[in-house]
Amino acid sequence: MLPFSRVAIIGLGLIGSSIARAVRQHMPTVHLTAHDADPAVRARVIELGIVDDVADTPGAAVVDADLVMLCVPVGAIGSAAEAIAADLPADAIVSDVGGAKLSVSEAMRKALPNAVIVPGHPVAGTEHSGPDAGFATLFHGRWCILTPEEGTSEAAVERVKAFWEKLGSHVEIMTARHHDLVLAVTSHVPHLIAYSIVGTASDLEDVTQGEVIKYSAGGFRDFTRIAASDPTMWRDVFLNNREAVLEILQRLTEDVTALQRAIRWGDGDTLFNLFTRTRAIRRSIIEQGQDDARPDFGRTHE
Amino acid sequence: MLPFSRVAIIGLGLIGSSIARAVRQHMPTVHLTAHDADPAVRARVIELGIVDDVADTPGAAVVDADLVMLCVPVGAIGSAAEAIAADLPADAIVSDVGGAKLSVSEAMRKALPNAVIVPGHPVAGTEHSGPDAGFATLFHGRWCILTPEEGTSEAAVERVKAFWEKLGSHVEIMTARHHDLVLAVTSHVPHLIAYSIVGTASDLEDVTQGEVIKYSAGGFRDFTRIAASDPTMWRDVFLNNREAVLEILQRLTEDVTALQRAIRWGDGDTLFNLFTRTRAIRRSIIEQGQDDARPDFGRTHE
Repeated sequence: MLPFSRVAIIGLGLIGSSIARAVRQHMPTVHLTAHDADPAVRARVIELGIVDDVADTPGAAVVDADLVMLCVPVGAIGSAAEAIAADLPADAIVSDVGGAKLSVSEAMRKALPNAVIVPGHPVAGTEHSGPDAGFATLFHGRWCILTPEEGTSEAAVERVKAFWEKLGSHVEIMTARHHDLVLAVTSHVPHLIAYSIVGTASDLEDVTQGEVIKYSAGGFRDFTRIAASDPTMWRDVFLNNREAVLEILQRLTEDVTALQRAIRWGDGDTLFNLFTRTRAIRRSIIEQGQDDARPDFGRTHE
Repeated sequence: MLPFSRVAIIGLGLIGSSIARAVRQHMPTVHLTAHDADPAVRARVIELGIVDDVADTPGAAVVDADLVMLCVPVGAIGSAAEAIAADLPADAIVSDVGGAKLSVSEAMRKALPNAVIVPGHPVAGTEHSGPDAGFATLFHGRWCILTPEEGTSEAAVERVKAFWEKLGSHVEIMTARHHDLVLAVTSHVPHLIAYSIVGTASDLEDVTQGEVIKYSAGGFRDFTRIAASDPTMWRDVFLNNREAVLEILQRLTEDVTALQRAIRWGDGDTLFNLFTRTRAIRRSIIEQGQDDARPDFGRTHE
């Protein structure tokens, strides 16, 4: 039994196009319709042949769907929900993939006051964007978090859960508020710091950009990967998870200040103790299959 | 013509053991002697068979050498230099691989006032440590920086340069002071921030360590790689490059504060502009062969 038989995807970037490919691979009988606001993306998706129908309007894409996945940047989810409101079948379930959940859930609820909504967030991605960047195995072994409002039908949540499990994900259910705090730690603040450190490095007077690039194998290059992620998507995430991001950033600033002080006063023990503790976390991440065990992420060394 | 015929390696961790393997591969006629302060490492290196002779003392390792490579943590380089002083041949060149150069050069000069010293730093590594972690291609396509004091014989510098080029590296020459500033940006501060963010994440009350691990694919896991690097090595680097690290950290803090303010006031343009700029740096790093072009560093997706 498949959880859904007619899936509509609104937005065909990295995530939307990966969902399309993954549905094709894992649930080949599902009928897939899609819409993207960008005509060039729509044309490309037709060429790629990863969905059955590419519609010219959001409404035409969802009119027969039993699951609608909104895969647009967080700041555009409210207007995407408004754009499907008139054509959405009464029994369809609406979900999304936004990286911030509290503000997005409110925006969807406001646009679709009577719809069955199960907000979701697959914690997966790469630094590449657009319909060509997607691939069917992106969600394999990754976690997808669902944040249904209180009172949402359990059957609806179960169907969305089953959908993600078919795509190879593990599924966890939590409140939108907790999601936003957890992701501030594991995703949003790391991205902000990565963007920031790459910016700082390229603005120095005494060290040229050429030097930063040449010697990036000393550690800097690890930060540049997530600092190459989609700018629109990430601007929207920060503006829509303001409170949690600022809270975690404040904590981090305090901890960096303590290390700064340890360096200034030559307190090697404080440094050594932290550096030992952080090794254990890496080990757990690898044990739980959330990263590559090979040194250097398995980068090639000729 | 080989630049050296008898190389002694003091310290057989990731870097020292990689040099041994790389010399074996690229200059198989070179005679390799080695010493490590840890008897267990010495025994393991004998088993691995990556050098010709493992000596029980630093002095015995260097007595016939024409190049001595000190591959111990930065904080131990001074005492390693003292330990070879009595047995060092007058025409041998002494070099090292320390990640901070100003303090290390001074320590070597103090211990070996009359020796020919060409301090060096191969900008290469992985998060793994010890003699089993090394491999022959670690330096391929990576940069090695030499920081000779003023007045050092050009011939000596050329020979050390030729040695690293034989191992597959590009070589750059600069002052120790400039090296320390460049590496603070491209290596030391990124490591400090990575260690710090992993520490912050594991200390929160409202987000469990289990959650941090589960959802680490959102970006956090990228930081855990360099935060799993050798604690002793990194403690020593920070204590020995204090000034430059604190200066760059101060810059970064200002830039993070500006982003924090942009998020608080909903200034999306500031965020978007930075996030667009940082993409270009990633592109240059890949174009110049300093990172893997495959998405996600080429991590496997089943």
